[in-house]
Amino acid sequence: MGESSALQSILYGRGSLRLLDQRKLPLEEVYIEVKDSADGWNAIRDMVVRGAPAIAIAAALSLAVEVFDQDFTGTPAEAASFVSKKLEYLVSSRPTAVNLSDAATKLQSLVSRTAETAKDAKSIFQVFIEAAETMLVDDVADNKAIGSHGAKFLQQKLGSSKNISVLTHCNTGSLATAGYGTALGIIRALHSGGILEKAFCTETRPFNQGSRLTAFELVHDKIPATLIADSAAAALMNNGQVQAVIVGADRIAANGDTANKIGTYNLSISAKHHGVQFYVAAPVTSIDLSLPSGKEIVIEERSPKELLNAEGGLGKQVAASGISVWNPAFDVTPANLITAIITEKGVITKSDPDGAFDIKAFIEAAK
Amino acid sequence: MGESSALQSILYGRGSLRLLDQRKLPLEEVYIEVKDSADGWNAIRDMVVRGAPAIAIAAALSLAVEVFDQDFTGTPAEAASFVSKKLEYLVSSRPTAVNLSDAATKLQSLVSRTAETAKDAKSIFQVFIEAAETMLVDDVADNKAIGSHGAKFLQQKLGSSKNISVLTHCNTGSLATAGYGTALGIIRALHSGGILEKAFCTETRPFNQGSRLTAFELVHDKIPATLIADSAAAALMNNGQVQAVIVGADRIAANGDTANKIGTYNLSISAKHHGVQFYVAAPVTSIDLSLPSGKEIVIEERSPKELLNAEGGLGKQVAASGISVWNPAFDVTPANLITAIITEKGVITKSDPDGAFDIKAFIEAAK
Repeated sequence: MGESSALQSILYGRGSLRLLDQRKLPLEEVYIEVKDSADGWNAIRDMVVRGAPAIAIAAALSLAVEVFDQDFTGTPAEAASFVSKKLEYLVSSRPTAVNLSDAATKLQSLVSRTAETAKDAKSIFQVFIEAAETMLVDDVADNKAIGSHGAKFLQQKLGSSKNISVLTHCNTGSLATAGYGTALGIIRALHSGGILEKAFCTETRPFNQGSRLTAFELVHDKIPATLIADSAAAALMNNGQVQAVIVGADRIAANGDTANKIGTYNLSISAKHHGVQFYVAAPVTSIDLSLPSGKEIVIEERSPKELLNAEGGLGKQVAASGISVWNPAFDVTPANLITAIITEKGVITKSDPDGAFDIKAFIEAAK
Repeated sequence: MGESSALQSILYGRGSLRLLDQRKLPLEEVYIEVKDSADGWNAIRDMVVRGAPAIAIAAALSLAVEVFDQDFTGTPAEAASFVSKKLEYLVSSRPTAVNLSDAATKLQSLVSRTAETAKDAKSIFQVFIEAAETMLVDDVADNKAIGSHGAKFLQQKLGSSKNISVLTHCNTGSLATAGYGTALGIIRALHSGGILEKAFCTETRPFNQGSRLTAFELVHDKIPATLIADSAAAALMNNGQVQAVIVGADRIAANGDTANKIGTYNLSISAKHHGVQFYVAAPVTSIDLSLPSGKEIVIEERSPKELLNAEGGLGKQVAASGISVWNPAFDVTPANLITAIITEKGVITKSDPDGAFDIKAFIEAAK
């Protein structure tokens, strides 16, 4: 779906689904065929596919492939119940993934509503298939809109004549979304617009999403790119080598405070110190207006093993035995260190450069 | 030499030298016996011992052990020439190590002067042995003085009633010096003074000197300690968990600008942002008054492999093939981000907290 040259982790055509096996990256680029929801369940559970939006879409599409040539003899209500049960089963592959269970709830309600007036089982399946396909198309379209808004805004802020170099953190690309990516989507848009000089990506310790995944996507798409250690970012900025930092978001509070991969806050402080612009790129679904500020965001701590052993915890012991470890998964970047938040509905700016955002007003206006 | 409980990487008694094999750390604590300059040459070349002061001292002591029971029948001049040639040979083990070649030059000049009046070869060797031993004793004594000055100063600045937690970067301990350490020496002094709550150490990517070596020393000395990813430092400071950052120095310019392991500059910016004190700990030999500022310091770039492969370049490929890498070994922290510089001769402070240091005046006054 779509003829982009950007790396695609979900290859779908009606009746056929292949997922890029992210466990084999970056050394091998292998796609796994998914024929039904059981294959989808295994792919999610075994980490073939990762990233919140990608998981939800892969689950829905695995069931869409299954019901496409389904020889089903029951009533519309029975078809709706069949889809509903399969969705419940898919949710059990990663019970804590909020996107996945939200998507399942919406799809269940759709097929049950459709069953009330549908003439046969086939039309239930047809409605479900179209809804799953829409999820894929919409996520890629949203990311492309983020990319386009972001590239335009950066060009406006930084001048269109000169080439722009940016730094990104973690992975926010085709490997974390349905395709194209959020922060990495803006980098793709800057590149295809001919105004990107170079993208720098951090290693992103301790799990190396930058060196493993983002570097892989940048090389794949032939975007000029350089990998740095997380702690080299300040020296890079001091050398004047980047004009902007662009990161993704796990969750954005109503004032713009943003929870994202550990190290994001570090980068925002360095950016401020060097007068480098700092952008958050995310779909509006990442915004949680029920949180007044970042203080309400609870930070998950991950296994010490990610720091004690090589390869983000999968390899040999590297660190001294007996050392204790603090390994937060995320940190919170306060709104006052963020230049703007780039969404598929447009760019959220603020009147006071050192103040917070009024995201509620932006959402209202965008409706 | 010395009864400290601190980890010792150089175990020396007249006629006997053992070096902690740093290649086996942190998984094994094995000492290698060094019987002569050939053993010393191999130990340096094979990275059994590392760190500029440690290398110079290990080289001199390996020759001291060799000449201790030397059956030498020549004249004093011949003995001096023997020592001189062996020192040249030792310098060839690591030709770029400035400390090693400086030390060799001084020792060569000492034995050649002594030969003019000495009555026999044995007394040449005796003078050499004592000079080599003095290097060891002096380096440990200097580090202990740094530790004591630093602990006193921190207590003065942060209050003696409350416990102090600090963050350090890279390895500046017994494994990089003759013993005790510089920045880590201050942490040892804070701990033995009963005023250290906790030491945090960064992983120190890409070569993991923090997780491999500093964590090992802290666990060895039973100092309460926690390891963090380099990029978690800002979140740590934001949580109010450290009152000071203490780092070592590779080179300090006349105005106080300090070259040190990549990531040091990053930490100094975060420290400033959070109102956390930032200290550099180093012997006065690290100060180069011929450099007016840090601008004159050339930054060495290291192998991309340290970022592309696990275990700091020694392990499996982790990063995507074809990605380019920027891997500077050091960065420069400007004087205005440094609270004070702690040396064995005392603490160098400045009148303007946001200004530079007058190190020349300090050195003159300390004479």
